[in-house]
Amino acid sequence: MTKAKSKVLPTILITNDDGITSPGIRNLIEAVKDLGKIVVVAPDKAQSGMGHAITIGHPLRLTKMEKLFDGVEAWETNGTPVDCVKLAVNKVLRKKPDICLSGINHGANHSINVIYSGTMSAAMEAAIESIPSIGFSLLDYSIEADFAAARHFVREIVMAVLKQKKEKHYLLNVNIPSVPLELIKGIKICRQAYAKYEEDFKERKDPHGRKYYWLTGEFVNFDKGKDTDVWALDNNYVSVVPIQFDLTNYTLKQQLEKTWKLNDTKKR
Amino acid sequence: MTKAKSKVLPTILITNDDGITSPGIRNLIEAVKDLGKIVVVAPDKAQSGMGHAITIGHPLRLTKMEKLFDGVEAWETNGTPVDCVKLAVNKVLRKKPDICLSGINHGANHSINVIYSGTMSAAMEAAIESIPSIGFSLLDYSIEADFAAARHFVREIVMAVLKQKKEKHYLLNVNIPSVPLELIKGIKICRQAYAKYEEDFKERKDPHGRKYYWLTGEFVNFDKGKDTDVWALDNNYVSVVPIQFDLTNYTLKQQLEKTWKLNDTKKR
Repeated sequence: MTKAKSKVLPTILITNDDGITSPGIRNLIEAVKDLGKIVVVAPDKAQSGMGHAITIGHPLRLTKMEKLFDGVEAWETNGTPVDCVKLAVNKVLRKKPDICLSGINHGANHSINVIYSGTMSAAMEAAIESIPSIGFSLLDYSIEADFAAARHFVREIVMAVLKQKKEKHYLLNVNIPSVPLELIKGIKICRQAYAKYEEDFKERKDPHGRKYYWLTGEFVNFDKGKDTDVWALDNNYVSVVPIQFDLTNYTLKQQLEKTWKLNDTKKR
Repeated sequence: MTKAKSKVLPTILITNDDGITSPGIRNLIEAVKDLGKIVVVAPDKAQSGMGHAITIGHPLRLTKMEKLFDGVEAWETNGTPVDCVKLAVNKVLRKKPDICLSGINHGANHSINVIYSGTMSAAMEAAIESIPSIGFSLLDYSIEADFAAARHFVREIVMAVLKQKKEKHYLLNVNIPSVPLELIKGIKICRQAYAKYEEDFKERKDPHGRKYYWLTGEFVNFDKGKDTDVWALDNNYVSVVPIQFDLTNYTLKQQLEKTWKLNDTKKR
């Protein structure tokens, strides 16, 4: 290490799951544009609820968007958010970016939603590839959502993270309450709440008399912990949940090793 | 507790992601048919790689299959594996089953694959709903795979799990090597390996001269631990990884709480 500080700007990969034309990604770009060399690779249409899907059954297209974002290199693909990260690393950048940002999602990705979220899957894909990564979501599904407060906190968090020493698979899930900036109390490091949708199906009959069902549901929080993302957001804090992709339940693993004599099983 | 053992058979919900007509689900049913009251709710077509997707944009159908499985109640839906679990609990059983089994998947769901897997998403959905759940996968993608050894171990594991006292969100990811029964050494409780696909894109040109890409990749194991699922499978053991859906990285959470003074942030 020399004493001189490096002047090389970090390469920042930006993607999302609402599609390259969504206001959320435009606001993300605006928030961090001067913090590095920005490269956008994002889906050509909304991909919400795609989870960690990848495209193997049909070929992928990659099209340069010359005029979409002023002065920013941008590519659209017909793939999923996870495909976007893979294409960005392998075909656009041809190297790993210094950080990957996903979002800003139109709608919450707190608590159990992290599992269903395309925004977080893209961020997780980058983290699996050892690229530090952050997913951002605003608690407002509207296409006309106000991203002013979100832009403020996105910028603050990205600046802080760029300065930090980061572990290999660094991954954050950031959710921002949908209130004006002056009402946001600050940022809280949280754990994922055990909160979920309690489903209901609306039953109807088609003109031929056959039943069909619409999935509906109500969000219910079973987790009253003040250290959770849901508590933070309910109390007008920005929630930051550090995320891992090792899903092993080590507590249950230990229990099973003690109580379940499976290793002796050698049935023929 | 009275001394008399309960004679009530457990209700066993069965689903998968390869579709209700796949050999894998038929073999799963055969393996456990006499262990409880079986109810099958499964997709009407293959849903591999759907991750944790749910259907909100179009209505769901639910059709009783009177003759598909001899003496077993079965329903097919046009939904995803996760939808199947939701429909089973809300519209078919109208209560929670005692256990949910998903699979037997045609192909591996070890290591990082658990994140992409429809089979494991269905099992996880059940676990979120506090239904003990197991996903089963055979390391053979072929439609004509030999499930004989898989049936043996599925049955053994389900019998053991039904007898166990189980925690609220009990969830196991079981993978079975694709070798004859006599070559399988036993069952190992494991952790999820850090192994993943190293992607490559094959670049081609369409008849109009425009480029397109096929996603291809090679599976690479970066994790040499003998306590991993990949090691167990490579050494002809059945791997059992206990799984959780709390993705919080508690180690990183503690680090950030110490080093990152975000809670003081109250920018106006």
